Amino acid sequence: MPRLARNSYGKSSVRLVKVVRQGDRHEIRDLTVDISLEGDFERAHTAGDNSAVLPTDTMKNTVYAKAREEPLGEPEVFAAMLARHFLKVSPASSIARVRIAEHPWRHLRVGSREHGSSFERASRERRMAEATAAREGTLDVFGGLDDAFILKSSNSAFEGYPHDRYTTLMETRDRLLATSLSARWRYGDETKSYGVIAKVVRNALIEAFAEHQSESVQHTLYAMAKAALEQSVEIDEISLRMPNKHHLLVDLTAFGLDNPNEVFVATTEPYGLIQATVRR
Amino acid sequence: MPRLARNSYGKSSVRLVKVVRQGDRHEIRDLTVDISLEGDFERAHTAGDNSAVLPTDTMKNTVYAKAREEPLGEPEVFAAMLARHFLKVSPASSIARVRIAEHPWRHLRVGSREHGSSFERASRERRMAEATAAREGTLDVFGGLDDAFILKSSNSAFEGYPHDRYTTLMETRDRLLATSLSARWRYGDETKSYGVIAKVVRNALIEAFAEHQSESVQHTLYAMAKAALEQSVEIDEISLRMPNKHHLLVDLTAFGLDNPNEVFVATTEPYGLIQATVRR
Amino acid sequence: MPRLARNSYGKSSVRLVKVVRQGDRHEIRDLTVDISLEGDFERAHTAGDNSAVLPTDTMKNTVYAKAREEPLGEPEVFAAMLARHFLKVSPASSIARVRIAEHPWRHLRVGSREHGSSFERASRERRMAEATAAREGTLDVFGGLDDAFILKSSNSAFEGYPHDRYTTLMETRDRLLATSLSARWRYGDETKSYGVIAKVVRNALIEAFAEHQSESVQHTLYAMAKAALEQSVEIDEISLRMPNKHHLLVDLTAFGLDNPNEVFVATTEPYGLIQATVRR
Amino acid sequence: MPRLARNSYGKSSVRLVKVVRQGDRHEIRDLTVDISLEGDFERAHTAGDNSAVLPTDTMKNTVYAKAREEPLGEPEVFAAMLARHFLKVSPASSIARVRIAEHPWRHLRVGSREHGSSFERASRERRMAEATAAREGTLDVFGGLDDAFILKSSNSAFEGYPHDRYTTLMETRDRLLATSLSARWRYGDETKSYGVIAKVVRNALIEAFAEHQSESVQHTLYAMAKAALEQSVEIDEISLRMPNKHHLLVDLTAFGLDNPNEVFVATTEPYGLIQATVRR
Repeated sequence: MPRLARNSYGKSSVRLVKVVRQGDRHEIRDLTVDISLEGDFERAHTAGDNSAVLPTDTMKNTVYAKAREEPLGEPEVFAAMLARHFLKVSPASSIARVRIAEHPWRHLRVGSREHGSSFERASRERRMAEATAAREGTLDVFGGLDDAFILKSSNSAFEGYPHDRYTTLMETRDRLLATSLSARWRYGDETKSYGVIAKVVRNALIEAFAEHQSESVQHTLYAMAKAALEQSVEIDEISLRMPNKHHLLVDLTAFGLDNPNEVFVATTEPYGLIQATVRR
Repeated sequence: MPRLARNSYGKSSVRLVKVVRQGDRHEIRDLTVDISLEGDFERAHTAGDNSAVLPTDTMKNTVYAKAREEPLGEPEVFAAMLARHFLKVSPASSIARVRIAEHPWRHLRVGSREHGSSFERASRERRMAEATAAREGTLDVFGGLDDAFILKSSNSAFEGYPHDRYTTLMETRDRLLATSLSARWRYGDETKSYGVIAKVVRNALIEAFAEHQSESVQHTLYAMAKAALEQSVEIDEISLRMPNKHHLLVDLTAFGLDNPNEVFVATTEPYGLIQATVRR
Repeated sequence: MPRLARNSYGKSSVRLVKVVRQGDRHEIRDLTVDISLEGDFERAHTAGDNSAVLPTDTMKNTVYAKAREEPLGEPEVFAAMLARHFLKVSPASSIARVRIAEHPWRHLRVGSREHGSSFERASRERRMAEATAAREGTLDVFGGLDDAFILKSSNSAFEGYPHDRYTTLMETRDRLLATSLSARWRYGDETKSYGVIAKVVRNALIEAFAEHQSESVQHTLYAMAKAALEQSVEIDEISLRMPNKHHLLVDLTAFGLDNPNEVFVATTEPYGLIQATVRR
Repeated sequence: MPRLARNSYGKSSVRLVKVVRQGDRHEIRDLTVDISLEGDFERAHTAGDNSAVLPTDTMKNTVYAKAREEPLGEPEVFAAMLARHFLKVSPASSIARVRIAEHPWRHLRVGSREHGSSFERASRERRMAEATAAREGTLDVFGGLDDAFILKSSNSAFEGYPHDRYTTLMETRDRLLATSLSARWRYGDETKSYGVIAKVVRNALIEAFAEHQSESVQHTLYAMAKAALEQSVEIDEISLRMPNKHHLLVDLTAFGLDNPNEVFVATTEPYGLIQATVRR
């Protein structure tokens, strides 16, 4: 009889928008929530016995009900609350994971002031939060961000790499470097001020990216991770994912033109992909 | 013999990034260019005779070469220059159209100052420009914007509509209204300052959206178009496209909870779609 | 006072799946329906008066109710029925348009037989149908298809085109030609057998594409349109949209290798775009 | 000094199309290749020393050159060859991974015969192959498939699950079950006939899905995995990912209509997500 080695199930892409009102001043919280449970669901798989299977539809309902019953707070807090809740109501689960993407809205400006209840989506960058609650009582909380599209038009080089018979890339001291940054950092146990830390870490990442004398994506990735760990003692580990969104210098010589790092073609395929985890 | 009633061809999605340097201060121009020609290409279709068919590959090359040879200027100016160029080099063409989407980048901040050569994508909203040059000498120039994702959490109603046997929608004086706005406006003949006008028009649209006491998407769309025409005499027509990105109030009564316009589910399908053109 | 020059509104992306059962043999009808009305909706725009505005939510409900009340039949028939219905229940409308995309499912095979109630999505190609009902009594019906991804690895050339200072493309008698075909054809007045005609037209398009000695996309497009008009007298006009999905020959000379039209890189940006309408 | 805990880099989305010709009969091989290396790249990260960093551009070139130099064979074979090659040319690497998605094309039919050099994309389902070569000499090879969109309109139930205060889902003996199946199976050491095994495994998965009396997605997933392991002794483990693409029964009672499992709305968000790995 084949053995169930691993299993998980849950609900993904639960889209929640909450309007928080203080008089005429509103705030928009716009979240995408993913929930996943792991544990002893053997009989559901092998015998069609659903007595331990909390429906994913119930998970979805729970997100909406909890969003009404409680203040959302930082996404890490909401994720942790949900993870603990699902662990409690699903005795078969040994682990409950909740991941939240928060989509940013900002108030529209009318003349020189902010309108209280009109908004625009600020950017496609999303703040991320993940919480994993385990039956034995541990809770791991991660913060992060996804899809921060950033670019350097100077201070980026790539040279000194090995050449083999398939190498055609030209070494360069000056190239355009662009990435769509994803980051995940693990909060230490005693953290409460997720929002403050998330801002400090994001700032550290962005400023290190901006200021770095880059010899490669790896080199800049590490400098960014290092800066984040240095500037926020509340995190003990950070993972960065940096796709190299290549901008290729266009060869204009056929038209009698030079191209001193000025005209590029932005490409989507293929792309380099650089990932690393850095710890204290 | 079947007759060729209409035809067009061209190159789409030419991705151009230009770095404009003034010392250590750089600017990023990030454009997607679409080119299309119409005219007498009968023999290409019916006889396989390509003697009148300027290759779309040449169109692409031209975009990159022109980006090096000339300052880009406003996207409307670049689009108009390209449209006239293609009309000139393709004698068979009676019409040349060029459409440009400009993707916004802004300088990263390091501490309290802007970094000169590091950037982040500002939002997914794109500034649009379209130019149509005709053999008889006319040039039509349109400005616009695509994908401005905006939302009102108050001052939006929908009631007083006809009911038939398939109507279940509840009338409401307070709903959440969200759209991903697209706009196109036609510039008058004598315009030169596209950038200034585009800012004025965008501002008019956004402020009218923010301030409007909305009775429907149509009602707000018209108010926005009216505001744009009033605040910028240099445009004579504006078309708006406003998908109604429905945010549905979640029914929490099964959980013993009310929901005073607080918790919504954001949906993508189906969506309302409201479009109109307004003229002086 | 600015004048409302054109306007339309409706519901898009209504996702309908209907299971049609004959004993143990089921069929899946999977449609995406878009509805749009045009007419005298002036007061909705200018005065916030919704008394003429059939809610788009009602349109959505109507699609689902009609799908239960009536056999769906060919998508053209369902589109025409819906268009006429909306014209009737919305007296302010002068035109009602309904567009349907049908997503294909086929029965799964178990051993040598088809399973009666298990299915797989057949391809990403969609059958299209559009109906426009006008107040004055006319009904225009179009059939079509979207996103038929087809490719020729021989009998495709491109040469004899004009050269200017920006031309670098090499002339060729042998290239790879790929497109994602969209087609729309207008049915004559007396047509009833949409399904049969749609099959004949699709066959004509596909066979002409396969067999054509192509001198350009335009040349093949016209041959396809001509074949469709010749093989189906029930249609009087056909429009084709053929993006040229470029497959670029990889230059392997740096590695001491030739490349006799064998190894290509498939690209998505930029792409050529060829469109034409052909009539009897 | 922060420590580099894990790192990987490589090239993703290398798009390769190869035309294989036997006289007038061609075949299209259409692959997307992802390459990733892990190993001792510490100095690239911490010191900007690229002497061990095989450029991702070289990886891309290698894919195209190897596609010309060698017959592609089964995607598993090409992946394994590439993984071993990259391990050899990158001494710093301890692990080289290559993942290949193969996009299916089939010959177009003209009348009753297949055209030798004209094709259509068969479906959006992709055959997958992954090879991981390790410095110590091991090679792990996985086969798989992604995005097989399948649906059951009978023999699917979900009942007997726990209820809590957030449960509103109705128990049912008859629902529509749809998923976009992904599978990965590990080949045993001595396997050579990847193509035959991949067909047997796919068949086993599809037939088990079609025939299963489903009490839940988990129940069907396990039955599918079990069937695959039983019908192919050459694989020792299989992982399945089955998003539950919910089709919701439309409530038509407001229109005086019943809905005996006939009219559904297909939804994309939120979705259930069921995953498991099953071993001998």
